[in-house]
Amino acid sequence: MSKEKRAVISLITDFGLRDPFVGVMKGVILNVNPSATIVDISHEVANHDLQEAAFILYSSYKYFPQDTIHLVVVDPGVGTARRPILVVGDKYRFIAPDNGVLSYIYREEPLKEVVAITSERYFLPSISSTFHGRDIFAPVAGWLSTGIDPLKFGEPVQDYVRLPLPDLVQPDDSTLKGAIIHIDKFGNLITNIDRATFERMMKSGSGRKFVLRVGGEEVVKLKETYAQGKKGELFLLFNSFGLLEITSYMRSAAGLLKLQRGDEVLIKFFP
Amino acid sequence: MSKEKRAVISLITDFGLRDPFVGVMKGVILNVNPSATIVDISHEVANHDLQEAAFILYSSYKYFPQDTIHLVVVDPGVGTARRPILVVGDKYRFIAPDNGVLSYIYREEPLKEVVAITSERYFLPSISSTFHGRDIFAPVAGWLSTGIDPLKFGEPVQDYVRLPLPDLVQPDDSTLKGAIIHIDKFGNLITNIDRATFERMMKSGSGRKFVLRVGGEEVVKLKETYAQGKKGELFLLFNSFGLLEITSYMRSAAGLLKLQRGDEVLIKFFP
Amino acid sequence: MSKEKRAVISLITDFGLRDPFVGVMKGVILNVNPSATIVDISHEVANHDLQEAAFILYSSYKYFPQDTIHLVVVDPGVGTARRPILVVGDKYRFIAPDNGVLSYIYREEPLKEVVAITSERYFLPSISSTFHGRDIFAPVAGWLSTGIDPLKFGEPVQDYVRLPLPDLVQPDDSTLKGAIIHIDKFGNLITNIDRATFERMMKSGSGRKFVLRVGGEEVVKLKETYAQGKKGELFLLFNSFGLLEITSYMRSAAGLLKLQRGDEVLIKFFP
Repeated sequence: MSKEKRAVISLITDFGLRDPFVGVMKGVILNVNPSATIVDISHEVANHDLQEAAFILYSSYKYFPQDTIHLVVVDPGVGTARRPILVVGDKYRFIAPDNGVLSYIYREEPLKEVVAITSERYFLPSISSTFHGRDIFAPVAGWLSTGIDPLKFGEPVQDYVRLPLPDLVQPDDSTLKGAIIHIDKFGNLITNIDRATFERMMKSGSGRKFVLRVGGEEVVKLKETYAQGKKGELFLLFNSFGLLEITSYMRSAAGLLKLQRGDEVLIKFFP
Repeated sequence: MSKEKRAVISLITDFGLRDPFVGVMKGVILNVNPSATIVDISHEVANHDLQEAAFILYSSYKYFPQDTIHLVVVDPGVGTARRPILVVGDKYRFIAPDNGVLSYIYREEPLKEVVAITSERYFLPSISSTFHGRDIFAPVAGWLSTGIDPLKFGEPVQDYVRLPLPDLVQPDDSTLKGAIIHIDKFGNLITNIDRATFERMMKSGSGRKFVLRVGGEEVVKLKETYAQGKKGELFLLFNSFGLLEITSYMRSAAGLLKLQRGDEVLIKFFP
Repeated sequence: MSKEKRAVISLITDFGLRDPFVGVMKGVILNVNPSATIVDISHEVANHDLQEAAFILYSSYKYFPQDTIHLVVVDPGVGTARRPILVVGDKYRFIAPDNGVLSYIYREEPLKEVVAITSERYFLPSISSTFHGRDIFAPVAGWLSTGIDPLKFGEPVQDYVRLPLPDLVQPDDSTLKGAIIHIDKFGNLITNIDRATFERMMKSGSGRKFVLRVGGEEVVKLKETYAQGKKGELFLLFNSFGLLEITSYMRSAAGLLKLQRGDEVLIKFFP
């Protein structure tokens, strides 16, 4: 990292913005690297919700400048034997507790190194058993952002924790089973059904049709933009992450359907 | 923009802070201009609420450093024919969807140029139909902040969209009809009645009195500070934006009156 | 402050993030000092809640870089005779209304100077009676961060306001009475009982036991980490601020106990 370039550190936590936790982490980072640029991705991850944090990271990390350090602290096991890890990818670095919150990264990115962080010289002098975001993760991110070699933070490991990601199952040629993996502020229900899989099963040009079943409702319309829908009507679109989304123009699809993250989505294709 | 000066980009959206949308926009901006200073004004605009976003911009933009780029993404028409626009004022630049969210700016600022943004070279390579905040607005703001001429982004237009702003009506010499245009976190009800209009109708020194009617209640006391009121008592003051505000010391006037934004406010003046 | 070092200004307010207040303050600061790094600690302090703001500052300020300016604007008396003050400590500076919100600082820090801010040349040209965060506090913080001598802002005073902090009382050798001073996002109930006082009363090695009574419940287990508890079981730990905390693994202790900040906590020690 040249002197001219300011390091970027992104943050994802479940700490919220009312308590001082996030501000404290930023203070610690700036104490180590005063020129770091810190960017909040989200601090409103539901308490201890690794799946939500994993998805938020997955949908955002690629849009940051090369060499960005993505720091994720959702850490129900803080103070136990679970390790802090540092993952070196092709373009980005990731720091998190080794609890699977980086599972999408393991699936998507070519990994150069996964390091179990053990070098206490990069920690705060006194380590609590309840706030490693402050005592370990923030200072390690700060030091890494100054250009220190990732291998100085600990030893490479292979047995890092992978979380089972929501399954996309294809029981037969005319059925696709997925799940709602995120509900956004607008009440859009984001599924794990990607465009490529959907289009393969639609056999584009074959005249196939489909019906999506979710929460006792059937949705059959696929549109391009939110504004193409009528208010209160449910329809589908592929969102900006390339994932199928159940939505409604100017309304909350989640409110209309009373669904939650994790709920099943089924698509039947027919001639 | 000299090399020494860091460009400021402010953000107003209805994206909330739980989803990754805002963080992603910041990543995109920093990827284009690593030295930009990004300042959040609000991301908690009610979904699709152009009036609220317009007011938040109106009440804040003047307090930023000269040359600040104010980026507003409240965009129910994302992906449709509505244009992205770039507005060059005397001291500030504004980027937003052309849906009227800049209407106060058109009323308040001398405009040098309104440009319909069309130059795809300043967009992300792949444009979704649902998240132009990421794909168009953020990179355009980033490039503009590096000093690129606004006219490189597209052609000047005259037919930009103006939103009808809440009316301040004066049916006769003793009546003023306005509206609640914002309710803040403290429950203060901010009206569109400005001090100059109010004082003109009061005919200062004439001994005129007034009564303000709102939601079935009458308010007649005008004070200077919140702390001059008794707890639970409704009164008025001209707030820091120069607008008449219905308030209550240490209480929520909105809670006491059960009013909403858009509700009418009537003032009768009498000798 | 050397030219190379960027000044850090932290912010604590009760302004929330929906209204433009915080963004406006940042605009004003950057207008004075474009190279300042502004860090949010919290803007979700409950309206007018000096005790909460005081605790949030107390638990965070030490983690920031030397010379950080901590700006706290929770200001129910805005526009009245209450003074704006500037406190110079050993390592940090603090700016706030003189309403006691800095009381923990007065207790914890060696004070070099407490200055009543009166020099209007560092204010905005026009001062409202309702938003001194924008008109006085932000520009003063901006100017202070450029290296101006604190004594240029006004005269030293001794009669600054101290807020009564929640008492930790020891009526006899086997009783400790404290209070809940903060409830965090996870529902952890943070008390004002510090580890040193607790251990002194436990007479480590003496075999003494204890029972903590709160809200009609008794809690007797003291653990090291959240994950050592069973879900739904209440237990205690000393948190990362060194304070006794009533908690429950993956559950909200506040929800289980239906307690509020300020509620009493009693510990009985017995042989």
